[in-house]
Amino acid sequence: MRPSFSHYLPILDWGRSYDRRALSNDLMAALIVTIMLIPQSLAYALLAGLPPEMGLYASIAPIIAYAVFGSSRALAVGPVAVVSLMTAAAIGNVAEAGTAGYIAAAITLAFLSGAMLLVMGLFRLGFIANFLSHPVIAGFITASGVLIAASQLAGLLGIKAEGHTLILLLVSLVQGLGQINPITAGIGLAVLAFLFWVRRGLKPALRRLGAGPKLAEVLTKAGPVFAVVASTALVWGLRLDQSGVAVVGVVPQGLPPFSLPDFNLDLLRALALPALLISVIGFVESVSVAQTLAAKKRQRIQPDQELIGLGAANIAAAFTGGFPVTGGFARSVVNYDAGAETPAAGAFTAIGLALAALALTPLIFFLPKATLAATIIVAVLSLVDFSILTKTWAYSKADFAAVAATILLTLGAGVEVGVSAGVLLSIALFLYKTSRPHVAEVGLLPGTQHFRNILRYKVQTDPSLLTLRVDESLYFANSRFLEDYIHARVTGDSALQNVVLQCTAVNEIDMSALESLEAINLRLHEMGIRFHLSEVKGPVMDRLKRVHFLDALTGQVFLSQYEAMQALAPDLAPELARDLARDVARDVAPPMTA
Amino acid sequence: MRPSFSHYLPILDWGRSYDRRALSNDLMAALIVTIMLIPQSLAYALLAGLPPEMGLYASIAPIIAYAVFGSSRALAVGPVAVVSLMTAAAIGNVAEAGTAGYIAAAITLAFLSGAMLLVMGLFRLGFIANFLSHPVIAGFITASGVLIAASQLAGLLGIKAEGHTLILLLVSLVQGLGQINPITAGIGLAVLAFLFWVRRGLKPALRRLGAGPKLAEVLTKAGPVFAVVASTALVWGLRLDQSGVAVVGVVPQGLPPFSLPDFNLDLLRALALPALLISVIGFVESVSVAQTLAAKKRQRIQPDQELIGLGAANIAAAFTGGFPVTGGFARSVVNYDAGAETPAAGAFTAIGLALAALALTPLIFFLPKATLAATIIVAVLSLVDFSILTKTWAYSKADFAAVAATILLTLGAGVEVGVSAGVLLSIALFLYKTSRPHVAEVGLLPGTQHFRNILRYKVQTDPSLLTLRVDESLYFANSRFLEDYIHARVTGDSALQNVVLQCTAVNEIDMSALESLEAINLRLHEMGIRFHLSEVKGPVMDRLKRVHFLDALTGQVFLSQYEAMQALAPDLAPELARDLARDVARDVAPPMTA
Repeated sequence: MRPSFSHYLPILDWGRSYDRRALSNDLMAALIVTIMLIPQSLAYALLAGLPPEMGLYASIAPIIAYAVFGSSRALAVGPVAVVSLMTAAAIGNVAEAGTAGYIAAAITLAFLSGAMLLVMGLFRLGFIANFLSHPVIAGFITASGVLIAASQLAGLLGIKAEGHTLILLLVSLVQGLGQINPITAGIGLAVLAFLFWVRRGLKPALRRLGAGPKLAEVLTKAGPVFAVVASTALVWGLRLDQSGVAVVGVVPQGLPPFSLPDFNLDLLRALALPALLISVIGFVESVSVAQTLAAKKRQRIQPDQELIGLGAANIAAAFTGGFPVTGGFARSVVNYDAGAETPAAGAFTAIGLALAALALTPLIFFLPKATLAATIIVAVLSLVDFSILTKTWAYSKADFAAVAATILLTLGAGVEVGVSAGVLLSIALFLYKTSRPHVAEVGLLPGTQHFRNILRYKVQTDPSLLTLRVDESLYFANSRFLEDYIHARVTGDSALQNVVLQCTAVNEIDMSALESLEAINLRLHEMGIRFHLSEVKGPVMDRLKRVHFLDALTGQVFLSQYEAMQALAPDLAPELARDLARDVARDVAPPMTA
Repeated sequence: MRPSFSHYLPILDWGRSYDRRALSNDLMAALIVTIMLIPQSLAYALLAGLPPEMGLYASIAPIIAYAVFGSSRALAVGPVAVVSLMTAAAIGNVAEAGTAGYIAAAITLAFLSGAMLLVMGLFRLGFIANFLSHPVIAGFITASGVLIAASQLAGLLGIKAEGHTLILLLVSLVQGLGQINPITAGIGLAVLAFLFWVRRGLKPALRRLGAGPKLAEVLTKAGPVFAVVASTALVWGLRLDQSGVAVVGVVPQGLPPFSLPDFNLDLLRALALPALLISVIGFVESVSVAQTLAAKKRQRIQPDQELIGLGAANIAAAFTGGFPVTGGFARSVVNYDAGAETPAAGAFTAIGLALAALALTPLIFFLPKATLAATIIVAVLSLVDFSILTKTWAYSKADFAAVAATILLTLGAGVEVGVSAGVLLSIALFLYKTSRPHVAEVGLLPGTQHFRNILRYKVQTDPSLLTLRVDESLYFANSRFLEDYIHARVTGDSALQNVVLQCTAVNEIDMSALESLEAINLRLHEMGIRFHLSEVKGPVMDRLKRVHFLDALTGQVFLSQYEAMQALAPDLAPELARDLARDVARDVAPPMTA
């Protein structure tokens, strides 16, 4: 299939059939999302250590870029908690927070991440994200949530806390306890309590008061906005900023500025790995949200196109004073629930936020930072879910090890170390498992043509015949294991005359495994034992024929294991009236012409 | 099984039954191997840039240590070509050749490598070596052989050549052409020609002259010894050393000295990676030789015990003035062919070499270095075999890519980069392949109960039923692929009511894949499609039950694919007179108690 224009520009697809109904639905969704995004965008900018207006900027141009290039119809891109934390960690390594260099680094990071996503999309490298296993992501997000909550706790109490690990954060929290500003702490804790109550108690209360489910939903989502308005009014009314309550202060009024990334080579090199991690993690989060939402309408997203959409969004962020963005879970779900039909809803949201940046910024001068910290804490605590530890413990110890390492190292050594270690460990454990495949010695289930593990079933065997079934593709990491296994099994078994390898589950035999099979064949030959294969899959057989392995094989290749037994231990395997064995065999090894 | 003393000390095993016949066989083998090893040991020490006597030392204590701890009865350990080259590369990075620091680094490298091998043996980490695929090893050895031959060509012509890449070596060879010493070059080329003739023409010539096969064999092996004696006598007789022919010179007379590794932390850190590579490559070479020889007598080697044996040998080398050693192919085969029955043959060889170190070293003062260079060239050219490129090209492009990268990078960037790149690339390609598994849409083969790929066979299908067979275990790297695949396949197919995943080749479902199956189940449910599994293996089923996946599944788990069709598309799958399907099913999912 040759990709068409509309393949790379999904807007050409949905743009054609855009009508009045879709327009009104999109406008409604945009209004709701805009109201929700204003405080959230400011808060995530502060989380990244950046001026609050950058949060707004990062939510305007990127949304439009995604609307043009992205394939999901409901995804809302912008700053999100985990990526903002990773941004803080990455640029904190190269510049001091509050400096122009810090802002330039954030912009450069967005550009790098966007460029990487674009390249991955154009070269269809989206599969790289698959190496982040679900448990590693879950553990990473949980640990990130804890780190974010700990860092925001300081802002909530009006003290300074810095550090990229949990211990550093806690130490600076404890050291700062003496400098708690009681008014700030009062506002922060009150907002926190209010927001928790909104999450838990508001919707049922409204329903009891007779509100419709839709209205109750909207009012619940507007909770943070109410907290922002109320606490801002309070600080303004009582001039609490003069009593030491930190406020957002002057936010420039105007549309996003034009900005340029810094192409200093040292900076690019220092930011390359963090940019890759941010890209991959942002992509994974985004795709899973987009897929969940698309499935509800039997729509489809194209993961490689998502890379291009997110890449364009990040590059747009880099040129308009923003920082790294991705598809957010909360905002996308709200967008979807509010009835967004097409990416145009995103464009309308962008217009709404642009108006806010133009007109509303003077109003947030007195917005206390503690309110934003409380907003973030409530948002991220919904991400924290340690149950992944008990789930993986019950299901798979390898997954447990990977997730435990991810959580511990993210908390103890920072986000970049944590997620890298999780990925490497899960790959290592997978390789370890496949390097020691399950090998079963099998025998004939009496009265059937089926062969089963002699340890699990009462089966018939012949002392001169050993049949092994290996439950894994044969490749370099397990080929020597197979050599050792067979060598150990046959040594000293003097009755043995034939060894059959049943290849039902062997999807591939690579060059190393081929040479191991040759070595096994040779060594068995030197012991006077013949070596056979059975039930070899078609594509595998094609390859074996190509390299003349079969010419050297001392035994035969049987189309079915039952045929092998008929030939090698005929007493145990009588001819069947109905020639089923041959039937099985034909299927297992498809014709060479296929 | 609780390992006994004799498990860790194989000597207790064979030592008990040692008798006069074994003794005389071992003595004979030791004599032949000793004669062969004298020039070889000196030559490999020079290849590593070390004083020649260190080659003898490295062949004495290590052989005895291996005889005590090793599990192979015929393996002969000592310096070998590839490991000597790797030693030169590793210690050349930390010290200047010819200095005391260089010698100390070699000793330390042997110690580090020995310690790593011991630890790997005690913790049974021998599987690490499995990640060196056969083609990567073959490519690495071939490229190393080329590098060694190029470096020795300089010694053969009497010029200096340095560098750890082929280009550097060739450049310094060309630059040095002006300084060729014609006498040295004459001796070197004559010896080279003689040795090639010995390899090719001597044995047939001797047989024609009536020599027995055994005698012809021994005389052929003694070829290098003859070249050493003749060229030494020539240089001594004509005092050619005064005409600029480089000779071995003064070699201290005496037993191996007691030496201590240097425990400087910086040095240990710098040598850690090279030591690991040397350990793993030495181990892989050694085990494949040992296994080949053991199989001929239906004996068995224990790979983890081999690690301990080689570890002990290297530590012995470190404390007796040696350098890294491993089981050599040529010497082991000679040892085996000469009739060695037990590791005692090795001990006798060690005694022979100790006598040589005590008594013979004054005799080699006039031994020209060009002769040793010629010996090495002839030995390593037998390792060079580029046919691995054409073989892998024909058999598997992934293997070809790994071997080509290994050869190019070994030649172009040195041994350490080359072998590391080969290992990483082969792992990456394996992961890539398993991340995009083969998925077949299958249908019923008419008149049977077998299901085959609809693209390969004329099969029966039902528009409301989609059956997919995935030919790979499901794990994090391919779980999202499966999600995408199913999502893409079902989107827009409005006739679809049931999707069945046939799990015949699924040996494992990890946590990520479990969550993907849950997501697939949920998304299909939202499209009004039920999701079923069939032919799930017993251990996989056990796990799925443990986490209550089956409770959420909208469809069923069928014991056989035929039962699935009977239930979901009954028109196509009539009940069979003989209830074979149930039969298959019972085997596929073993009882929970098993």
